[in-house]
Amino acid sequence: MSQTTHTEEQQEPAGSKKLAAVSVLKFGGTSVKSIARIQHVAEIVKERLKHGKVLVVVSAMGDTTDYLLKLAHQCSKTPDQRELDSLLSTGEHISITLLSMMLKTLDVSARSVTAYQLGIFTENVHNKARIIDIKTDNLAQAFETCDALVVAGFQGVTANGDITTLGRGGSDTTAVALAAAAGAKYCDIYTDVDGIYTSDPNKIPKARLLDRISYGEVVEMARLGAQVIHPRAVELARQYGVILRVRNTFKPDHQGTSIDGGEDMEIYRSISGVATDKDQACVTIMDVPDQPGIAARVVGGLAKKAIVVDMIMQAFHPTAGLNNITFTVASTDLPQTIKTLEELKTEMGAKAVHADEDIAKVSLVGAGMAGQPDIAARLFETLGTAKINIKMITSSEMKITCVVSRGQADKAAKLIHDAFELEKV
Amino acid sequence: MSQTTHTEEQQEPAGSKKLAAVSVLKFGGTSVKSIARIQHVAEIVKERLKHGKVLVVVSAMGDTTDYLLKLAHQCSKTPDQRELDSLLSTGEHISITLLSMMLKTLDVSARSVTAYQLGIFTENVHNKARIIDIKTDNLAQAFETCDALVVAGFQGVTANGDITTLGRGGSDTTAVALAAAAGAKYCDIYTDVDGIYTSDPNKIPKARLLDRISYGEVVEMARLGAQVIHPRAVELARQYGVILRVRNTFKPDHQGTSIDGGEDMEIYRSISGVATDKDQACVTIMDVPDQPGIAARVVGGLAKKAIVVDMIMQAFHPTAGLNNITFTVASTDLPQTIKTLEELKTEMGAKAVHADEDIAKVSLVGAGMAGQPDIAARLFETLGTAKINIKMITSSEMKITCVVSRGQADKAAKLIHDAFELEKV
Repeated sequence: MSQTTHTEEQQEPAGSKKLAAVSVLKFGGTSVKSIARIQHVAEIVKERLKHGKVLVVVSAMGDTTDYLLKLAHQCSKTPDQRELDSLLSTGEHISITLLSMMLKTLDVSARSVTAYQLGIFTENVHNKARIIDIKTDNLAQAFETCDALVVAGFQGVTANGDITTLGRGGSDTTAVALAAAAGAKYCDIYTDVDGIYTSDPNKIPKARLLDRISYGEVVEMARLGAQVIHPRAVELARQYGVILRVRNTFKPDHQGTSIDGGEDMEIYRSISGVATDKDQACVTIMDVPDQPGIAARVVGGLAKKAIVVDMIMQAFHPTAGLNNITFTVASTDLPQTIKTLEELKTEMGAKAVHADEDIAKVSLVGAGMAGQPDIAARLFETLGTAKINIKMITSSEMKITCVVSRGQADKAAKLIHDAFELEKV
Repeated sequence: MSQTTHTEEQQEPAGSKKLAAVSVLKFGGTSVKSIARIQHVAEIVKERLKHGKVLVVVSAMGDTTDYLLKLAHQCSKTPDQRELDSLLSTGEHISITLLSMMLKTLDVSARSVTAYQLGIFTENVHNKARIIDIKTDNLAQAFETCDALVVAGFQGVTANGDITTLGRGGSDTTAVALAAAAGAKYCDIYTDVDGIYTSDPNKIPKARLLDRISYGEVVEMARLGAQVIHPRAVELARQYGVILRVRNTFKPDHQGTSIDGGEDMEIYRSISGVATDKDQACVTIMDVPDQPGIAARVVGGLAKKAIVVDMIMQAFHPTAGLNNITFTVASTDLPQTIKTLEELKTEMGAKAVHADEDIAKVSLVGAGMAGQPDIAARLFETLGTAKINIKMITSSEMKITCVVSRGQADKAAKLIHDAFELEKV
């Protein structure tokens, strides 16, 4: 019988058969974009072998995925999804073999495996498949013949033998799923930054590197544009209790930022950072006659097109009996959103669809902000004093997000960072 | 139970479960080297669908394989063979997906499969694996969901799930093996020439396109440098009685050259062509003390390094009791050959190893030349009259090969073509 680890779809615990002390390392596309960088990665892997076996997950080299996408779009404006996934999977297939060759030249017993070869099973969906199952027996078996197992990120295989890709954050997700399957305590995400900061250090020089942050906070920050690690991978890490460590490929001795449950974190820190996201647009469907479930119809209609609606606001005009429903979507989804809403407009008897691209989200994130109303007050006051108009507001237990004009977003973030003295957290 | 077709290793007949009327088409790297060419190939495939299902085997696009090899050699001077095979397999993996996408845009129900996905099983050898087994059930099943099945040539998978490549002529071999497994009568090899000529038409303008040639003749011609189709694929076609058709991708209406058993061919034609091969070198191990089995030791020692020895000549000097063993190898194998012989030299008590790179083979090929000694006589006379020195001679049932100085090879071929009036065959 094969031990299995159910990952993204089911919440069962990992299989009982554990591998002894495996380090799990993930390197993104910029970390393997040239042969020189692959050599650098190989040296990091070799160093890690002093502490036991190593499982390495790699993305495609630099611009390979873009190149393959370009080829696909030269064949077809709407490439067949099954074929596209199979094509894109070659990007990681190339990088795993090169890294393994390089490791071999460093006398490391290395072995590359595609998702197909290892058996990273996903649901039968293309372009954004979720991992269903990784056979821990396969992992244990693969490690019998090597010290460093190099696994292609971002890809999977269906029960029918079709190749799938995991979509955005796919390689991070592969790494976390494998760490869970291998029973590893840590999953190290190597990237080209030092870790997670209180805000974008390119824009706010005072921004400070965090030693530690909770899963929840990093998900909020990632959703808000601080894309060091994809929220989906963080959610999976939380589910399996894998501690993520975001580290800099080019400073392998730095510890980076640990992401964990944050159990004792709130006692010393209520706010962890401020994040901005400019790749957003705001859409309003106007004068929708009041009926039960109109918001659900809008969100549901968009969900069918795989458009994720984020902030949503419904304003009712009591005398007219009409509603305006406003929400934010990713800028890339805007054309499709407008098209879908125009169809819904007639169906729902609404008057117009209005889009506003001049927006950005600025968010204050912190696990300890719940129940501290003075934080929101200070935030709004900071923006108000600076005459930055707030277009929308939402808040959750660990964040407050304000939509402002796109041109004012960086200024807003800087003012907030100063007002909350985030450089001292 | 799965029906299986044993191909390169065993001579059993193909499985009894046949697919109804499948056309098998193979396109080489130049035929798919750009998106425009892939579109052209897709149109040929679509046209063929009028006659039933189509199985298409494709090579990697243009220079992809060279590019991947270059990457591998940047990682390591001697890349790990398992990793190299896995890397190289991505070349065909890319081209099958692009061709399938293109077919889909032409409303063809197409589906790409790698060797891994289809189950083209090979022996567990890298870089030049032989096909052991193709499950005809898998083929039949794959065709249930598509009209055009696009299969990656040149690659295979071992029982352990390692990716292999088939080496030179690999894609041709894949196509023939699949034609045999599918029970197809024909296997069409699309290339960038019109078919097989009596000699190289670039060098001998009188050279004539042959409508038909026998397996044996084409193997001899291919071994001698006329590389339209790899002899290995021809041998496999002969074994399974698959009729090969060499056709021009850019003149899809031309019939090209058929390659078959040539049963009734010799009654009208004794000579089919003249071929030259300049990528050859001649090596002599000198003054080997006379002992039984010395030639076997030389050839065996080279075989261990996968060096194929072609023409071999042993000259015994009775008074000295010493032998000179001379043979030809591919130029690319020369450094390794010299190295191996230098080792054997001491072991065998020989005096010296001598290499001659200034050679070329010129061969006259024809199924009907056996038992006609006047053909050999006329050949030697033609070269003698032109003062072309013959360094070595070998002959078989359907060819006579002369080794001459490399600079004289083209002239020799032209003279022979004229002497035998091959433009009239």
